[in-house]
Amino acid sequence: MNKKIKTPSESAAVLTNLVLPGETNMLNNLFGGELLARMDRISSIAAKRHSESYQVVTASVNHVSFNTPIPLGSIVKLEAKVTRAFSSSMEVYVDVWIDDPVTQKQTKSNNGIYTFVAVDEHNRPVPVPQIQPETEEEIERYNAALRRKQLSLILAGKMDPKDAHELKALFKD
Amino acid sequence: MNKKIKTPSESAAVLTNLVLPGETNMLNNLFGGELLARMDRISSIAAKRHSESYQVVTASVNHVSFNTPIPLGSIVKLEAKVTRAFSSSMEVYVDVWIDDPVTQKQTKSNNGIYTFVAVDEHNRPVPVPQIQPETEEEIERYNAALRRKQLSLILAGKMDPKDAHELKALFKD
Amino acid sequence: MNKKIKTPSESAAVLTNLVLPGETNMLNNLFGGELLARMDRISSIAAKRHSESYQVVTASVNHVSFNTPIPLGSIVKLEAKVTRAFSSSMEVYVDVWIDDPVTQKQTKSNNGIYTFVAVDEHNRPVPVPQIQPETEEEIERYNAALRRKQLSLILAGKMDPKDAHELKALFKD
Amino acid sequence: MNKKIKTPSESAAVLTNLVLPGETNMLNNLFGGELLARMDRISSIAAKRHSESYQVVTASVNHVSFNTPIPLGSIVKLEAKVTRAFSSSMEVYVDVWIDDPVTQKQTKSNNGIYTFVAVDEHNRPVPVPQIQPETEEEIERYNAALRRKQLSLILAGKMDPKDAHELKALFKD
Amino acid sequence: MNKKIKTPSESAAVLTNLVLPGETNMLNNLFGGELLARMDRISSIAAKRHSESYQVVTASVNHVSFNTPIPLGSIVKLEAKVTRAFSSSMEVYVDVWIDDPVTQKQTKSNNGIYTFVAVDEHNRPVPVPQIQPETEEEIERYNAALRRKQLSLILAGKMDPKDAHELKALFKD
Amino acid sequence: MNKKIKTPSESAAVLTNLVLPGETNMLNNLFGGELLARMDRISSIAAKRHSESYQVVTASVNHVSFNTPIPLGSIVKLEAKVTRAFSSSMEVYVDVWIDDPVTQKQTKSNNGIYTFVAVDEHNRPVPVPQIQPETEEEIERYNAALRRKQLSLILAGKMDPKDAHELKALFKD
Repeated sequence: MNKKIKTPSESAAVLTNLVLPGETNMLNNLFGGELLARMDRISSIAAKRHSESYQVVTASVNHVSFNTPIPLGSIVKLEAKVTRAFSSSMEVYVDVWIDDPVTQKQTKSNNGIYTFVAVDEHNRPVPVPQIQPETEEEIERYNAALRRKQLSLILAGKMDPKDAHELKALFKD
Repeated sequence: MNKKIKTPSESAAVLTNLVLPGETNMLNNLFGGELLARMDRISSIAAKRHSESYQVVTASVNHVSFNTPIPLGSIVKLEAKVTRAFSSSMEVYVDVWIDDPVTQKQTKSNNGIYTFVAVDEHNRPVPVPQIQPETEEEIERYNAALRRKQLSLILAGKMDPKDAHELKALFKD
Repeated sequence: MNKKIKTPSESAAVLTNLVLPGETNMLNNLFGGELLARMDRISSIAAKRHSESYQVVTASVNHVSFNTPIPLGSIVKLEAKVTRAFSSSMEVYVDVWIDDPVTQKQTKSNNGIYTFVAVDEHNRPVPVPQIQPETEEEIERYNAALRRKQLSLILAGKMDPKDAHELKALFKD
Repeated sequence: MNKKIKTPSESAAVLTNLVLPGETNMLNNLFGGELLARMDRISSIAAKRHSESYQVVTASVNHVSFNTPIPLGSIVKLEAKVTRAFSSSMEVYVDVWIDDPVTQKQTKSNNGIYTFVAVDEHNRPVPVPQIQPETEEEIERYNAALRRKQLSLILAGKMDPKDAHELKALFKD
Repeated sequence: MNKKIKTPSESAAVLTNLVLPGETNMLNNLFGGELLARMDRISSIAAKRHSESYQVVTASVNHVSFNTPIPLGSIVKLEAKVTRAFSSSMEVYVDVWIDDPVTQKQTKSNNGIYTFVAVDEHNRPVPVPQIQPETEEEIERYNAALRRKQLSLILAGKMDPKDAHELKALFKD
Repeated sequence: MNKKIKTPSESAAVLTNLVLPGETNMLNNLFGGELLARMDRISSIAAKRHSESYQVVTASVNHVSFNTPIPLGSIVKLEAKVTRAFSSSMEVYVDVWIDDPVTQKQTKSNNGIYTFVAVDEHNRPVPVPQIQPETEEEIERYNAALRRKQLSLILAGKMDPKDAHELKALFKD
């Protein structure tokens, strides 16, 4: 059990980058696989900074939405923050914004949720610090993270839906 | 409305590939972002073959699990199959197997679920053929796809949980 | 001497992939070097599956034809099969098909022939299983493989043309 | 002439990223060419944000120092800020920090100075906003930028050393 | 018919490069597919310089041998020369040398033979200048190129072996 | 102290390569970061050949000019030569030429100056051979290298401007 408590902003990480021709799909937008890889990189950095462990490994991608295509020449900014820490795993939220190449107006294009496990040099899970959300958005995501965790355990057959109290509340008549 | 009906195996796609040093993470396993990109590529191929459209675009990654690390030198096989078609979107399931580099034993390492939208040359959604599952696994995934669709709509605030009948059944006492 | 006998289909390998902008040449077709690299990857996988060895190394590219350019946005399918096994080397045939990005019609675009040597962890050649061709095409390629082997030895100055009986038959008046 | 005045922090850009095995040199440190490319990307983003132009093109790399090697597995943070704006060109300073993969201690590893020109869609130079430095470091770099500009003009044979008053002051007895 | 005559050295091209970790296979040698891509690049440059055409496209890889593995950290030098020009196609020979990373001794590691077709902006074949070999090696390769051309036509079923006079001479008793 | 003396041409290195779509920026010219990486590769090869050491590491990029954009489809030739050797460091000059894709006319597009340090297997600096310039251009660059070295030491605060005799001469009235 790790007694340390940290805030999301202590481990937040930012990755601003271009969209060059070699990173696009046939429609001249950022290729989906390339965006997923960038999200994986920046969210693992937030998880590593939070856990202060030897290494973190991707446990799952919980959800990634692709609302707005990101055109060639855009400036893309990814911001990753740990939303909640469990015993040795952490959920990380990545928000993606694009700067229009001409007007430079910033638009929220999509977001993703990743889970990482902190490990030592023998690849064994290690306990991670707890999280203390501060902003309204951080608190809301902290609460939602527990419901997502329960959902994930149910889908994997590792939790009885009857025991997922937070999640059940959603479906009450 | 597209009246055509196709089976999952008609559009199934296979991508077998190596894990070379330039594709690994610090622990000498396949880098998570690289696996996500490969999954995106092969699942988009299955969706494109099913839809027979000008192009398909990634709408969301619904879930990807990373159960077993994939070591350097492995042979990795990804198999993508459309599980269910909605009006112009399709859910695709990707199963990942690894061949141990020495014993060559095949192991299921992880899987992922992606959603694609079929579009025409003006980037407008077009109707896609319906799916007729055949094997037991295909039928099971076809049914689960509807629950995942409902869950996705609820999480996006586009559906009232009360109306998600298939999903609610899971949480009944 | 390896007493085991395997069929070509036991080790056949398939690599289906897209052609993205970062993989094209100046004419907007798949770059030749990128296709050669994909062929090398998938044929080495077939050779490794057949040999069940620690590793295989490329000994030679015997021939690759580029009949039809593969346009941006195509789905490209490579299928590799071992045609014949010698003491510790194997000849592998790769067939390449393209799906037209709009009509989805499949066309045979080109093919290649590679030779691999199976090695142990000290990089020493090891004996490989023999091959038992089954289909008509497999039998025809099995026979042609011997003529190619003789030709290759002659060109390398390691065989006297007079001793290449199968090859000489081609040039009889 | 562009009358607008902006501060360096309005266009500052951050790129945090990993060092993966495919990005290292033979000594298992980040490959120099890869670091130069990352610096070019992030500094061009700062320049584009400052200029609000159609595009910026690299005019020169004025200086990049490589003081500390950046080992495999490090988290690398690049921060780019415009130091001074001339008629249509901008000097950008990039600072590079590394997080040790185990201790997570941050160390300044090196820095670089790039010059960009803002252009319109016909590739013609356009005037850029002026810069108003705020912090002590920004002011110091703003002043040094003029000396570097003079030096650059002298080395290119476009300025008589006698006219480089700020620079000459350095060499007075 | 192109009346111009050029020597091989007028269009010879050299590509010296490193072997970095991201370009190796599992045995820490240069990955075969990467070498094939580099050979394709440099031989197409020699063909383009010779043909002075809008573009050249790879028609076939006639043969590539992999005699000596090229270890991580090596300096690899590829030299490409046109051996013979036909109506609109050219055969190019690529020789590969490695500098040992420590002793710096140069070793011939392997070679390859590629064929390119010169095309105009509508992708139609255009006539290319003839070649005038100068050195002993150039003359020998010029003569062998005709035999390879005949062999290639026979293997493709486009020439009757009886008409391949130069090739038949090899198999005479 | 290394008593050996070598000429610049003994270690000169050439890298000729294409500009493919995956290597361009949004204006369809070679991406600046990609050119910097190629310059780093070829200049480190010249430094390694001159030093005959275990490895060389980039110490600084002293200056790179980008005068002429390099369009997609160009043939780009980089030539690197050591200009001057100090105790364990070497300055290398890289000249870049482009062949127009249609007219094939060669144009000098830009140049760069890099400094490398020769190290042994424990990453400790080792003495390097001295340089004996031969051509007029080599002699001119040899002399300028000393002034650049002094300038670099001054900018780093490691030399008093008063002691930079060669540099001071430039600013004399």
